[in-house]
Amino acid sequence: MKKLVLPLLLCLSLLLQAQENPLSYVKPITGTQKMGHTYPGATVPFGMVQLSPETDTIPYEMNGKYNPDVYKYCAGYQYEDKTIVGFSHTHFSGTGHSDLGDFLIMPTTGKLQLNPGTATHPETGYRSSFSHSTEVAEPAYYKVKLDDHNILAELTASNRVGFHQYTFPGNEPAHIILDMMSGLYNYDNKNVWSFIRVENDSLVTGFRQTNGWGRTRIVYFAMTFSKPFTAYGQQNYAQDVYKGFWRKFDQTRNFPEMAGKQLRTYFDFNTAPGEKIQIKFALSSVSTAGALRNLRTEIPGWDFNAVKAAGQELWSKELRKIQIESRSKEEKENFYTAMYHAFINPTTYMDVDGAYRGLDMNNHTANGYTNYSTFSLWDTYRALHPLFNVIQPQRNADMIQSMLQHYNQSVQHMLPIWSHHANENWCMIGYHSVSVIADAIIKGNAPFDVNAALDACVATARHRAYDGLGYYMDMGYIPEDKIGASVSKTLEYAYDDWCIAQIAQKIGRTDIYTEFIKRAGYYRNVFDARSGFMRPRLSDGTFKASFDALQTHDQGFIEGNAWNYSLYVPHDPTEMITMMGGKKQFAAHLDSLFTMELPDKYFAETEDITRDGIIGNYVHGNEPSHHVAYLYNYTGYPWKTQERVRMILKKMYHPGPDGLGGNDDCGQMSAWYIFSTLGFYPVCPGSDQYALGSPAIDKATLQLENGKSLVIKVKNQGDKNVYVQRVLLNGQPLREPFITHADMMRGGELTFFMGAKPLKQ
Amino acid sequence: MKKLVLPLLLCLSLLLQAQENPLSYVKPITGTQKMGHTYPGATVPFGMVQLSPETDTIPYEMNGKYNPDVYKYCAGYQYEDKTIVGFSHTHFSGTGHSDLGDFLIMPTTGKLQLNPGTATHPETGYRSSFSHSTEVAEPAYYKVKLDDHNILAELTASNRVGFHQYTFPGNEPAHIILDMMSGLYNYDNKNVWSFIRVENDSLVTGFRQTNGWGRTRIVYFAMTFSKPFTAYGQQNYAQDVYKGFWRKFDQTRNFPEMAGKQLRTYFDFNTAPGEKIQIKFALSSVSTAGALRNLRTEIPGWDFNAVKAAGQELWSKELRKIQIESRSKEEKENFYTAMYHAFINPTTYMDVDGAYRGLDMNNHTANGYTNYSTFSLWDTYRALHPLFNVIQPQRNADMIQSMLQHYNQSVQHMLPIWSHHANENWCMIGYHSVSVIADAIIKGNAPFDVNAALDACVATARHRAYDGLGYYMDMGYIPEDKIGASVSKTLEYAYDDWCIAQIAQKIGRTDIYTEFIKRAGYYRNVFDARSGFMRPRLSDGTFKASFDALQTHDQGFIEGNAWNYSLYVPHDPTEMITMMGGKKQFAAHLDSLFTMELPDKYFAETEDITRDGIIGNYVHGNEPSHHVAYLYNYTGYPWKTQERVRMILKKMYHPGPDGLGGNDDCGQMSAWYIFSTLGFYPVCPGSDQYALGSPAIDKATLQLENGKSLVIKVKNQGDKNVYVQRVLLNGQPLREPFITHADMMRGGELTFFMGAKPLKQ
Repeated sequence: MKKLVLPLLLCLSLLLQAQENPLSYVKPITGTQKMGHTYPGATVPFGMVQLSPETDTIPYEMNGKYNPDVYKYCAGYQYEDKTIVGFSHTHFSGTGHSDLGDFLIMPTTGKLQLNPGTATHPETGYRSSFSHSTEVAEPAYYKVKLDDHNILAELTASNRVGFHQYTFPGNEPAHIILDMMSGLYNYDNKNVWSFIRVENDSLVTGFRQTNGWGRTRIVYFAMTFSKPFTAYGQQNYAQDVYKGFWRKFDQTRNFPEMAGKQLRTYFDFNTAPGEKIQIKFALSSVSTAGALRNLRTEIPGWDFNAVKAAGQELWSKELRKIQIESRSKEEKENFYTAMYHAFINPTTYMDVDGAYRGLDMNNHTANGYTNYSTFSLWDTYRALHPLFNVIQPQRNADMIQSMLQHYNQSVQHMLPIWSHHANENWCMIGYHSVSVIADAIIKGNAPFDVNAALDACVATARHRAYDGLGYYMDMGYIPEDKIGASVSKTLEYAYDDWCIAQIAQKIGRTDIYTEFIKRAGYYRNVFDARSGFMRPRLSDGTFKASFDALQTHDQGFIEGNAWNYSLYVPHDPTEMITMMGGKKQFAAHLDSLFTMELPDKYFAETEDITRDGIIGNYVHGNEPSHHVAYLYNYTGYPWKTQERVRMILKKMYHPGPDGLGGNDDCGQMSAWYIFSTLGFYPVCPGSDQYALGSPAIDKATLQLENGKSLVIKVKNQGDKNVYVQRVLLNGQPLREPFITHADMMRGGELTFFMGAKPLKQ
Repeated sequence: MKKLVLPLLLCLSLLLQAQENPLSYVKPITGTQKMGHTYPGATVPFGMVQLSPETDTIPYEMNGKYNPDVYKYCAGYQYEDKTIVGFSHTHFSGTGHSDLGDFLIMPTTGKLQLNPGTATHPETGYRSSFSHSTEVAEPAYYKVKLDDHNILAELTASNRVGFHQYTFPGNEPAHIILDMMSGLYNYDNKNVWSFIRVENDSLVTGFRQTNGWGRTRIVYFAMTFSKPFTAYGQQNYAQDVYKGFWRKFDQTRNFPEMAGKQLRTYFDFNTAPGEKIQIKFALSSVSTAGALRNLRTEIPGWDFNAVKAAGQELWSKELRKIQIESRSKEEKENFYTAMYHAFINPTTYMDVDGAYRGLDMNNHTANGYTNYSTFSLWDTYRALHPLFNVIQPQRNADMIQSMLQHYNQSVQHMLPIWSHHANENWCMIGYHSVSVIADAIIKGNAPFDVNAALDACVATARHRAYDGLGYYMDMGYIPEDKIGASVSKTLEYAYDDWCIAQIAQKIGRTDIYTEFIKRAGYYRNVFDARSGFMRPRLSDGTFKASFDALQTHDQGFIEGNAWNYSLYVPHDPTEMITMMGGKKQFAAHLDSLFTMELPDKYFAETEDITRDGIIGNYVHGNEPSHHVAYLYNYTGYPWKTQERVRMILKKMYHPGPDGLGGNDDCGQMSAWYIFSTLGFYPVCPGSDQYALGSPAIDKATLQLENGKSLVIKVKNQGDKNVYVQRVLLNGQPLREPFITHADMMRGGELTFFMGAKPLKQ
């Protein structure tokens, strides 16, 4: 009997392999070149630890001088770089601003060097040359050869623990450096305090506290080595005035408590040739005791391959939520890489026992939900959270719980704008938490106190001191002479207010509905009929005289010019189209957007994207236009939507390091890809409607959490057959290029019939 | 019937008044001038909050230059000063080094000024002139008129909450400043981080983190005002590089979250003439939530007088543990002021729910005991903790529990040396925790795991990396060419080791006894028979050639010269006396110590004391000689002990601001006074023996916690009648000038018969 088991298992395994594992299509290296700002390292879905290599850690500012290159290193890694500085445990995925890079670990051999050295002269420090030929980046696994040290570095992770495995050449002094100074978007004095305890010969605990994007941020850690170190030490690089009675000790070597503002530490090992030294490195927002509990709970043993396999299994499970069929390997790589990037953020932000640090710097416990952080809401409300409402509804509800706890802890009494690690960093504009909340409520994914959620939305939207909101409430728009980017803000507030009105309407809170549906119309107040654009107004009611609709800077907008931003009335496209001259004129206007030639001088000032992120004057690399291609649907020209969407898919996404035309922005760019590839897009989150586009795969099966599945079949699809001829929902033809969320959640089949010619009526 | 109640109560009250309240004899102002380093503000016995005025906050070092004046402000207050900067919530009592001064509050009127101004020009800042004529300092109560602002300031406190009451003149803008930059022993960059939340119009929370004597120290607070403020604001004085998206806001006024390295904040009020504004200000080592819980638990209401009365009742209860009779008001003031100063430290270090921050920076809970901090052990092991074994045994046992928890949390695996606020600051020498533990165990006050306590002592004493201990263990002494103050350290280690041996002997751990009783004899290794002094030796075994027995600095000693320190073998005075030439020669040697003229050049280098702290070459202002006057008892000249002790009592202590001849050192100087006034002293803590001296009161009743009482009767005592003629213990004559702890704990009567002539046999 026993003899049969093995062959049987083998057969099963082969069968499973035949049932394609989407994991193999994920290319974490995608977007690591230029502006994608993704990272190639190891993380599990929505994991607290993001263990990834840093190819440089350019400071934001040193000696008072801003360093524009810092921007390239938002995620710590740039594909063109030739050296690796080390591997740190926290990273944002695809952001256009940064922080983190906590706890840089670097294994070295030979003479101990505690400074990182330079990219051009890695031999002057601990960093190492590397080559992409030895590099492997998979979900939950990263491998690279550190050439200068002849060390093979491998990384994997569980949710809260990074797992390092370094294979040493032996016969040379071996060191593992823990650089507490290193960080992303670093600058003088960013490190507020570091504290390290060498608890025994293989366990180290501590914390790092920084003042950066997160103003009062603290991360605790516990690290264990698979083998005792023979010695350890530190160098303190800060000019601390006061040493006190610690001078009794030689603190530089084998002194078990190290503390200061700028510390680098090292641990020495004896190694045999080919010997592996492993490190488990756990994080906590609460305490070193919490980190140690996370470590011992999540990875009790030392089986690197088992942890890697478990991490990859977590990914497979998430990726299988949408199974696609496509004849194109590139398409599959694009798609599953987008799924991968979409499922990195928001990140888990609590210990295994539910404890987490709140905005009030007190410890809290998440009861009955998973607490999340890393809310890049200006980006992610658009498509990422709507995507979660389709295939990650439980997580999305937990994210909203987390946002409501943020509100409860916020001394401003505001929902998150952009928050991470118990800090509101106030990045970008609007208050798009309300969109995420409204979208979940309207779509029936609201296992939380909806009335309390509405109260939080209303309090946020009535916060007069916030970014021109007082002016907006009093005047119906924000005067540009008072507050910059006034048009972007007015438009986004109006949309957010519409979201609040939707919640109020749904639960019958009429007074709130009345108040906010009125505010939802304030977009009209910045429309300049004469120019045909949204345009900044001044306190006296006049439009600002000088005005350049192509210019991004100082024109009343942010991350978008008037051309792009004028199309931002997602909650009332019909009225907007009327206002802008009616369907035909509007469609022509959209055409111009995509086809015009943007002069170089304007591009130079566009934020956060490369030339690749632009089509004509349509900016896909930034978010404000993400719904724009779908606006044709409202003009009677759905075939133009279909055409444009396919063009954008082709032009803006491809596998490979330079595969993203702009910051992935915590998954928003990827979520756009996923929706659009599947053939529909949430033009207005907070409504239950999706606009149909042009699906770019042959078949997709969405496994819904309600146990149903939605099968999207695409007949006759191809690079030329991008035009939808007919759509059947469970056999019934759709008359409009729209579908509702409820339609999808009922499951069944959505069949697109494609052709090479546009269906022009 | 009712009509009778009031007169009856009045009679009772008068009766109680007749039964003298020791409270009225306490003069907290004692020692606030010159070197006493006490503070006059409000605290309860062993309280976590010490709310007291700062007359200046001289920085330790500014722009790289040491400021010797910082030393004067160890407790924040110097009697000669003419201005008050504000009132802060944490102070050490009597230390010779400092930290703390957390959360300075200052009420002002008129134009808002956020800088403190200068002592010579108080009008340039928020500080105020004051006069001692308006000043009242009582236990748990402090009052002063802030003349420049015409504000009457009153302070009281519960254990964890400071209570301020400010009476404003009205008709002027009123402000209350919370200066987060201010601190004691301040210097550039000492403030690591400050965080403040204005939770509502009368509740503010936050924390302050510093890098000073306590290297990684953090204190949380919650403050409530009795009346809503009308506005508030801050100024950030740090040159922080990075502002981030917080620039969206005007953070200087009415912005509820403030964070940075150098913050001063203010709160504006409207006041009517004579209106009082009260502040309750709670501390926690754990969190702002903990501070708020402390606040609401300890002082739920706003009755200042009731809180003051409760605080004073706590003091009365503690002070009544020793009731003395004396014909001298000055004596009573000295005595109860000494009791007061003895009962300030160690300080409570846990929240009302038992939670406290440990050395590992994790939160812990004290189960079944009160957790204490502020262990100035080099000072307090001598007489303060022995005094606690007599009249505060429960607290002393809890202090030892706290020390054992310190050991458990210490990454050095050492008992405290000098610890405060979850930090080991390593001040001074030796490892005198072991003396405190041995003294409690030998005296039968050990409701803790004695074996575990011994293990902690042994681990501490075997810590080779600690301050020359490796040399000491290997060579039997510390070579001065390797580690400074080698003789002081060798002598104190030897005594500490003897303490460890006593514990081991008592619980039958023979191997440990053998090891440490051997080490206890190492004092012999630094005795130079030729010079007759303890003298530094070098690595090669020779005595250091150049040697000045009167010099304090660089001679192998600390806070004492060879003359004083050579007498430090508390555990073996008999052998020491033999070694130094026998009883007669030794007594003559002691005589010289007290009578010689110390040339000015030597005094100038004596640490921590004024001229008043010296008699001849006997230094009472520092601790190493505190047992010396009692050594005559071992020579057959007990009458000389009696004479010297009375002389020291007279010369070194008197009521009034300049009443202390040296740092009170967390109550050690005061404990010496209490013991000596009562007629006995613990020459060697860790033994059960007290040496008898010359009691300076007529009668004393010690209320023991075992329910018994010891009455000390002193017959025919007076300024001239300082010589003991006869001593009866419960009617039985004592044959030797010694008494045991067990004798005292049995209670009963100890009667001294005094006379004007020494009993010379």
